[in-house]
This record gives sequence, structure tokens and C-alpha cells, in this order.
Amino acid sequence: MSRILGLDPGLHTTGWGIVDYDGLRLRHIAHGTIVTLAVDEISSRLSCIFKQLSDIVEKYSPKEVGIESVFVNKNPESSLKLGMARGAVICCVGVLGLKIAEYTPNKIKKSIVGSGHATKDQVSLMVQKLLNCGNVKLDAADALATAVCHAHHKTSYEVRE
Amino acid sequence: MSRILGLDPGLHTTGWGIVDYDGLRLRHIAHGTIVTLAVDEISSRLSCIFKQLSDIVEKYSPKEVGIESVFVNKNPESSLKLGMARGAVICCVGVLGLKIAEYTPNKIKKSIVGSGHATKDQVSLMVQKLLNCGNVKLDAADALATAVCHAHHKTSYEVRE
Repeated sequence: MSRILGLDPGLHTTGWGIVDYDGLRLRHIAHGTIVTLAVDEISSRLSCIFKQLSDIVEKYSPKEVGIESVFVNKNPESSLKLGMARGAVICCVGVLGLKIAEYTPNKIKKSIVGSGHATKDQVSLMVQKLLNCGNVKLDAADALATAVCHAHHKTSYEVRE
Repeated sequence: MSRILGLDPGLHTTGWGIVDYDGLRLRHIAHGTIVTLAVDEISSRLSCIFKQLSDIVEKYSPKEVGIESVFVNKNPESSLKLGMARGAVICCVGVLGLKIAEYTPNKIKKSIVGSGHATKDQVSLMVQKLLNCGNVKLDAADALATAVCHAHHKTSYEVRE
């Protein structure tokens, strides 16, 4: 049995989800979001993401981490902000000694819904159905979807720069 | 007397420099670079930046931190990489409880050379002259320049998102 942490990083909202996978069955353990406020200083926001994620890793002890590979925004300013949030998240799990596998949004959608062009709502509904975990907000649903995708692709890690 | 850490983050090379400032005089304490290799996984690279920077902060105990505000690259991919390095650096000093002040490249150059349009070599030469610290590589020179700029502007923090 392996415990997987799925992550969907963002400077405002970082979704996270934990699932257990025994090779046959998926089991929902927990999910949530780390939210930081735009009025706060960037160092407070990033260290908040780092600390809260550290607490989640300490509490649930995942053994593997899946993260959505980034959709490079056309806006360099948005890319920079997203990059900073990803930097805080990735260095946190790196410092804690966990390996990260990255999956493209299309691969994640395909893994959950069967189509790479599913909407966010479709992914969310299918995650709730697959994991039988009730209503889940979109950011956390994306994180759970990434964890499920990692469970399905565990043998073929896509770790990219 | 205050001890200032200047930082010039980058995914490949992060420059750092430490200066003491007593309101009249600047004193060079140390400088260096944190280098990570493109062949390594992104989580290793970011956690290496985080850990080495933590060690530097622990060793020199700076009280304040200055960082160059980002030059938003036109290339979203480069912005994302730079963002991730900045994310690791900023969340590291945030987690360690230090406040960060950001300065534009022009303000830093003006503070060192007297002109916002100085070349990197001019900044480096002037940093070496001001701090009497011998030959300094460009990334570390930029970090020392940021520390000097912060010393000059200590009373007017520019903390921005």
C-alpha cells in the first residue's frame, strides 16, 4: 500500500489531496486547500505555504508526491507568481526527502475522465465518484486527481525540470 | 550595527553577500554563490538552494535581507524557472523569520554606481572598491550590491508582491 500526496500549487490557493493505493483500490484519506492573501507580503505567503504543507506531510506521512506539470501562462508576471508558489511547494517536499512526479494536465484528465479535454467540473465530479469523498472544491479536486493519476502511472514517473 | 544579507536568486546560480553597516561604514563579511545543475531533478535543485541558504543564514545571522525585484522575462518558461528559484529563496528567509526588502535593478545600480544604467561589470568593480573585498564573481557582486543598496535605503523598505 502506498500513500500518495497530490498537489496543485498556486500563490493564492494550493490544493492538496491524499489517497492510499494498494494496486487495486484507491482510498480517499484527506484533502484541502492552503490559501494565502494578496494583502500579505510575499515572504509571509510563501512561508505559509511551506509551513502548512510541512504540517500536512508530517500528519499524513505520504510516501510519494504527484504534481501537475505547469501550464506556462502567456503572461510572464503570472508565470512568475505561479513559479514562486511551485518553488515553495517543490522545495518543501524536496527538503522533506520526498520525490515528485509531474504529470501534464491532459494526462491527469485522461487518467480520471478518460479524455484529455475534460472540464474542471467533470474532473471534480469523477474524483468525487472514484474516491467516494463527497463534495470537493475545484483546487482540492485537481490535487486529488493528480494523486489518482500518480497511482495509475506509478511505474512510469515523469520527473521533468 | 546591522548585518544585511543581499540575494540574487536564480535556478542555476543564486548569488549571496553579507555586509555589516553601522550607519556610516560598510564592511564586507562574506559572499558566494549557490550553484545547482540542470541535470538534477527540480526538487533536488530547489531543496539544495533552500538548505544552503539556511546554512548561510545560520552561520552569519543576518538581521535584514535585500533582494533584487524581478526583471520579468518576456519568456514565460524563463519567468517560471526564475520564479521557482525566487520561491525557494523567499520562502527560506520567510520560514527563518527574516523580512525581505525588494529593490529594482535600477535602484541598486544607482545606489552603487550613481547611474541606473550601469553595466554589470561597472557594478561589480564598484562593489569591490566600496567593500574592499577583492575579486567577486558577477552573481555574488549583484548580491553584495543589493545588500549595499539595502543599507542605503534601510529606512524606506520597498516590500512588494
